[in-house]
Amino acid sequence: MATKPRLATPTVYKIMEPSLPTVLLRPGEADRIVAGHPWIYGGSVLRLTQPAEDGALVQVKDHRQRLLGVGLYNSKSKISVRVLAPDRVTLNEAFFEERIRAALAVRKKHLPGASSFRVVNAESDFLSGLVVDKYEDVLVVQTSALGMDQRKSLIVDALQKIFSPRCILERNDTAYRKFEGLADANGILIGELTGPVTINLNGLSFEVDILGGHKTGLYLDQQANYQAVAELTKGGQVLDCFSFLGGFGLHAARAGAAHVHMLDQSADAIAASSRNAAANGLAEKCSTETINVFDWMKAQTAVQPHEKVVPKFDVIILDPPSFTRSRATVPDALRGYKEIHLRALKLIKAGGTLATFCCSHHVDAVTFQDVILSAAYDARRILRRVATYSQSPDHPIIPSIPETEYLKGFAYEVVR
Amino acid sequence: MATKPRLATPTVYKIMEPSLPTVLLRPGEADRIVAGHPWIYGGSVLRLTQPAEDGALVQVKDHRQRLLGVGLYNSKSKISVRVLAPDRVTLNEAFFEERIRAALAVRKKHLPGASSFRVVNAESDFLSGLVVDKYEDVLVVQTSALGMDQRKSLIVDALQKIFSPRCILERNDTAYRKFEGLADANGILIGELTGPVTINLNGLSFEVDILGGHKTGLYLDQQANYQAVAELTKGGQVLDCFSFLGGFGLHAARAGAAHVHMLDQSADAIAASSRNAAANGLAEKCSTETINVFDWMKAQTAVQPHEKVVPKFDVIILDPPSFTRSRATVPDALRGYKEIHLRALKLIKAGGTLATFCCSHHVDAVTFQDVILSAAYDARRILRRVATYSQSPDHPIIPSIPETEYLKGFAYEVVR
Repeated sequence: MATKPRLATPTVYKIMEPSLPTVLLRPGEADRIVAGHPWIYGGSVLRLTQPAEDGALVQVKDHRQRLLGVGLYNSKSKISVRVLAPDRVTLNEAFFEERIRAALAVRKKHLPGASSFRVVNAESDFLSGLVVDKYEDVLVVQTSALGMDQRKSLIVDALQKIFSPRCILERNDTAYRKFEGLADANGILIGELTGPVTINLNGLSFEVDILGGHKTGLYLDQQANYQAVAELTKGGQVLDCFSFLGGFGLHAARAGAAHVHMLDQSADAIAASSRNAAANGLAEKCSTETINVFDWMKAQTAVQPHEKVVPKFDVIILDPPSFTRSRATVPDALRGYKEIHLRALKLIKAGGTLATFCCSHHVDAVTFQDVILSAAYDARRILRRVATYSQSPDHPIIPSIPETEYLKGFAYEVVR
Repeated sequence: MATKPRLATPTVYKIMEPSLPTVLLRPGEADRIVAGHPWIYGGSVLRLTQPAEDGALVQVKDHRQRLLGVGLYNSKSKISVRVLAPDRVTLNEAFFEERIRAALAVRKKHLPGASSFRVVNAESDFLSGLVVDKYEDVLVVQTSALGMDQRKSLIVDALQKIFSPRCILERNDTAYRKFEGLADANGILIGELTGPVTINLNGLSFEVDILGGHKTGLYLDQQANYQAVAELTKGGQVLDCFSFLGGFGLHAARAGAAHVHMLDQSADAIAASSRNAAANGLAEKCSTETINVFDWMKAQTAVQPHEKVVPKFDVIILDPPSFTRSRATVPDALRGYKEIHLRALKLIKAGGTLATFCCSHHVDAVTFQDVILSAAYDARRILRRVATYSQSPDHPIIPSIPETEYLKGFAYEVVR
């Protein structure tokens, strides 16, 4: 009998089904789970009532035996259980179909008209260990938890039913998999794919190399911000740093920027961004340079003693990769953020705009702005904040799961 | 000789003009001023080099005699000097005209099409002690610092030149004035005004009683948010708490909400919001109630033991007045915020939306969200954050002047 999965209304625990192995939590460890966080670390577990297979569905109870939820167990992972629901569920195709449809409804509501987006964003969509990206009619699946990986065929079946895609691939080469005891696995799961896919973001086309490209092919989390930042670039000389495939740069060029110069240290990315500029009829407004952004900034801001840097740009966009993947390297990352902001602020004309992003979960918005203000102080510039950005709504933020929030950005105008 | 005021490029100190009284700062007090903050507290002052009249222009130097800026002096105020510029300026009509035009340019850029907005927002526009609101062709001036109050006629002349308004009034009854040694002063400065003014916000008309109404008549700082929140209310049963003149409620009704119920404890506000609903052809979709929101919430969420509150609303909007005006009362304010969120969350259907605002500078965004999460925990609800709001761009944020940031808001969807 298929148990109807549900997000909306809690129902009575079904006592008719065979009992699941039970993970009992230590006192004090239940609150986070009740608040919606799905991760149960090994240290939170008091004991298992019976042996559980890695990847199996287990129930989680607090030390007073009250049911907190059900989830997938993995003794090999630091995260012993990934909770999937507050009540008993059956992990069949119908479960995944309902969860994926619920996630899709969030995208349809908050990104209406988008045809390429992240369909499922793991914890953000209450499917810890599963990411699904949609590049037009191609779907890319990542399963970074053992229990989810074991159910890949159910997930693929559900995706086929919902989307009828041309192709479903897996890009399972993330570092997370080895912590779960999983090997890398890349390739086509169903359908066919040859060559890059051309996707549409806000009416612009981008060529994405899904099988060979970075991560799952393109950063979809900036889709809404591409559009918003472009509105600030009209008529301006724009510098797009860490331009990757030209997301910010091409949106700016289309929105009316006078000229956009794109910098990226990947020759492949720069070549793709040039092709994208041409494909969108924006090549005349765009120039590109394959270079390390720090090196470029240093060269541009190098002056003789008592000389001043001559500001050249109306708008500078900084969208660097994460400078830190762990708490330990945050101080180094902050030095990097400060240096790049200091140099960028010297290159922006008075009245110009800095749009800047930080995609590290370990650097929060307050800390990020403090670094920018410190750079502004050293550059003797006064800033007006005119916009605050977050990740696009296909990467939903569940505040009781702080790890779901990572991208933050600001736009500042240089008052003087 | 009129010195051209400037925000854009620092120039050489003009040694030809008669020297100004100099306020020397204690060591360590200069950084904040260099960063752009205009306030110099009495405790930061080392000494005056010569006596200065209250309200006079003075220059400010660090303890090593380096010029930091010029500003207006007031021995009676806790804020001894309000810095106006990093270099020597002459405070004539041209100075005010240039500053006001610069402020206006920010509004034209970021609130294009708006006809009613805050023209000058004090520190946000580098005119500490001056607020100017534009209600269509009527301007309302507030001078909350002595030096600014003394120059009211220059300011009025500049405003006449820029806007040619029907009327300029002063609404000088803020608490701040008494700290500056200023008496209350309300009334028409130039032109004529009888009865309320009808203003246009995002294409909706609102009746504003400028001479008799609250503050300067209406909260302009939510103009952009009215529009943004309304987009989340389509087809829904909406509750607008602390509805005042109906800003959120009427925008929701126009955007397609099925019904809007507005609550405010001011009978005058409720009467005005009803007239506004009728004037915009939205009366059929709106109902109103003159009541304390806490009392209403308590009554709606009162249940027998083991009963559950039945959620009735698709969208609840909370836009309360500040629960605290000082650091000392923050804990009480947080208790108030928690209670109202707890009750509101019980009244929102699963899948529904909470849009909530906090206009106290003393409660930051992180603290505000923590209170909401604490309420969500108690209500056993999981939230998805779908929007982050700030004050409208006619209340600019200068991050190096933290006091310029006060309004924060979030929209959350109730996942379950």
